[in-house]
Amino acid sequence: MENVLKEITPKSVDYSQWYVDVIKKADMVDYAPIKGFMVIKPYGYRIWEFIQDAMNRHFWATGHENAYFPLLIPEHLLLREAEHVEGFSPEVAWVTIGGGEELSERLAVRPTSETIVGAMYSKWIQSYRDLPVLMNQWSNVVRWEKATRPFLRTTEFLWQEGHTVHRTRQEAEQETHQQLEIYRRVIEEELAIPVIAGRKSAGERFAGAVETLTLEALMGDGRALQIATSHFLGQNFSRAFDIQFLDEDGVQKYGWTTSWGSSTRMIGGLIMVHGDDKGLRLPPRVAPVQIAIVPIARSGDGASVLNYARELEGALKPIYRVRLDDRPEYTPGYKYNDWEMRGVPLRIEVGPHDLKNRAMVFARRDTGDKTTVSRDGFEREVASVLESIQARLFEQATEYRESHRHMIEKLRDAEEYGYRGFFEGGWCGQDGCADTVKAETGMTIRCLPFEGQARGACVVCGQPATEHMLLARAY
Amino acid sequence: MENVLKEITPKSVDYSQWYVDVIKKADMVDYAPIKGFMVIKPYGYRIWEFIQDAMNRHFWATGHENAYFPLLIPEHLLLREAEHVEGFSPEVAWVTIGGGEELSERLAVRPTSETIVGAMYSKWIQSYRDLPVLMNQWSNVVRWEKATRPFLRTTEFLWQEGHTVHRTRQEAEQETHQQLEIYRRVIEEELAIPVIAGRKSAGERFAGAVETLTLEALMGDGRALQIATSHFLGQNFSRAFDIQFLDEDGVQKYGWTTSWGSSTRMIGGLIMVHGDDKGLRLPPRVAPVQIAIVPIARSGDGASVLNYARELEGALKPIYRVRLDDRPEYTPGYKYNDWEMRGVPLRIEVGPHDLKNRAMVFARRDTGDKTTVSRDGFEREVASVLESIQARLFEQATEYRESHRHMIEKLRDAEEYGYRGFFEGGWCGQDGCADTVKAETGMTIRCLPFEGQARGACVVCGQPATEHMLLARAY
Repeated sequence: MENVLKEITPKSVDYSQWYVDVIKKADMVDYAPIKGFMVIKPYGYRIWEFIQDAMNRHFWATGHENAYFPLLIPEHLLLREAEHVEGFSPEVAWVTIGGGEELSERLAVRPTSETIVGAMYSKWIQSYRDLPVLMNQWSNVVRWEKATRPFLRTTEFLWQEGHTVHRTRQEAEQETHQQLEIYRRVIEEELAIPVIAGRKSAGERFAGAVETLTLEALMGDGRALQIATSHFLGQNFSRAFDIQFLDEDGVQKYGWTTSWGSSTRMIGGLIMVHGDDKGLRLPPRVAPVQIAIVPIARSGDGASVLNYARELEGALKPIYRVRLDDRPEYTPGYKYNDWEMRGVPLRIEVGPHDLKNRAMVFARRDTGDKTTVSRDGFEREVASVLESIQARLFEQATEYRESHRHMIEKLRDAEEYGYRGFFEGGWCGQDGCADTVKAETGMTIRCLPFEGQARGACVVCGQPATEHMLLARAY
Repeated sequence: MENVLKEITPKSVDYSQWYVDVIKKADMVDYAPIKGFMVIKPYGYRIWEFIQDAMNRHFWATGHENAYFPLLIPEHLLLREAEHVEGFSPEVAWVTIGGGEELSERLAVRPTSETIVGAMYSKWIQSYRDLPVLMNQWSNVVRWEKATRPFLRTTEFLWQEGHTVHRTRQEAEQETHQQLEIYRRVIEEELAIPVIAGRKSAGERFAGAVETLTLEALMGDGRALQIATSHFLGQNFSRAFDIQFLDEDGVQKYGWTTSWGSSTRMIGGLIMVHGDDKGLRLPPRVAPVQIAIVPIARSGDGASVLNYARELEGALKPIYRVRLDDRPEYTPGYKYNDWEMRGVPLRIEVGPHDLKNRAMVFARRDTGDKTTVSRDGFEREVASVLESIQARLFEQATEYRESHRHMIEKLRDAEEYGYRGFFEGGWCGQDGCADTVKAETGMTIRCLPFEGQARGACVVCGQPATEHMLLARAY
């Protein structure tokens, strides 16, 4: 705790350093002794558990079940789907020795599991009666990355990957959209991060996918974060892995498959979207501590104030994640800063005066507002304030995004904004123009938003637009 | 589903084959395309999720928090604790290539995480105020095994591993016992598996531990399963990893550490302890489906019986994991066998007669008993029957164990029982006698039970006993 109150670098001075200061000082994560790997500490991991709970509720409600597939994938399986192997093999970590002996075939530490899952599905699926297969896996994956940043891009990360097989193309496409919608709900409703949904352009698709759907969020520095993706894999993997079924009409057919994933990267997005120069700001639904109670006691009345604080804690504990900060070695001011830095949504301060009046002071982390609240019915007030904070963080983030979202006619129109923010405009659909965007501006096509409509000319070449695209520099 | 009703090999004919038949036919697990690896299917994984929930409740209640440490451990860290590396390095899978390049230092896929956790704790702990550190991790681990069996011993498995640091030896020893007691409660209360708690003899200790505590369960074939362990590590790892703190008295001291683990192996124990020749028998608290409702409809009254079954399902659904089996393609008899094979604790059968009488038939999986139950207040009856099944499975398993637990005076006294079961007797404490037991009988010292008392002579050499030991052939 000794380090907690050292300065956090202001966002405006150095956004990257601000991010690292916040996650380390809020005790969410630490660097591991191997380059590119992180340790997720309890305060960060608890947020991951809340995300898992929310995702699982939605997955179960839509008929999905969790399962577990092996960590290690034999090389010959990884090689089966041509585009997939091209996309992933440069990033693979290989196990070559096991039990003291050189292995006859090297084993990939899974970078994603379509191949091993496909091999199993091929065994399990025989008849149309076996379909759909709707499975999800919570696991770790490894992708050898050159530039890493905790939560956002690490060599190992935690995620969930769903893998499904369907009887028809239409059903698989629906699944792809349904799962994207689940991600949207969890990310917007729990994490309070507004997202833009759309299709990836061909150049940005998942290796082996026919279509990749994505959710894109805007971070506090005007850069985009791809925060979850859902892939329609067509019959690419079912052909590569021989996932066939005997249909009702007596004909042997290939299944239609999907996969979809979201990871600890969401926690990085959470920090960057809501954090400020005082540290984290956590939406109540995913805050490990929702309410911190800080007693302010002068000598003489310490015991009675502490008892009063305990009474409040006891009233809230059955419903909320509440922490009474009775550490004797720190001043109230230190504690205020500490809980603000950790992003606790609501702080309740109680002093001798509050005890006398059967009242307390509510301090909101999102606005900094302080109000006096009566002890009678304060539980209802807590409920209402937490809901208000959850809603306001989402509104603030949406306002920030909308004020950093610009329609452009020409690529250079984005220059005056320093390429910070989302830029929308027409695209002719040619790879060449996508390459030009990247080369000249460092931006990429984040997606072709579902809600956009192709209009006017391509912002790059001036030819008629066939697509509406969303551009940004991205993490 | 087509394969479901093929014969399960009787336990008495071939116990190993029985085990494999049951787990495959109940759809819990499948073999992966790499030797020694398994795929945990949803029906098996759901049980793991119930175990996780139960463990987490206990861990949280005792102040532990979940965290996540890296999968890959640099070789130099693994080498730091001499006994530990000697124990684990023969089983390690090594990553030698990452991102297309040979690594300068090879990385172990974690066989357990004391070393990487120790390296981090050394950074995090400075003062006595930082203690205790109480963390747990849910993760996968890899140990290169020669002979494998799903759930019981696989190259990769899922587990939790707790790692704690304490100020005093006494506190760390208490922690070791407290966590063993948590395991005992979850395994006995949720999985309905009775266990014997004790200390491991020196030869059976965890590599690097000062003391290993264990829970030993007796399987249906009279072999023992070590089902969870808790290790007092003394200062071995704190010295190897320099986990020091400045104590209140101003003196720099080494921390006292513990680690404790339980794994998907518990599911193997669950199957072997309760299963019978019809398949699984699952304790209600961890059954993915607690109640199966099977409508028995003749042509003509099909719709009204099905509606009645739906009404019952609707009444139970808010509280229980219930499944209405309305598959038109199967007969009631097929469905009975199917749900029995999957170990569902309670089956509710409803036919036209039951509909008329506003009644139903309860069929218990544990006893096979059938009773008629009135629709009025049947929910209370369900609660009571499920509790009774949970209790009875535990009693049955305890009775089985007690009837296969023998006091012996001489090692050869165990021969008449074919070395099946638990054998207890005196031990002189010498390694030589432990080796003799193993060489002559294939049994090992499972533990020195807390409740046993050294008496009489060593069953091997006849010298005075200094320990009371529990012997068995083990998985």
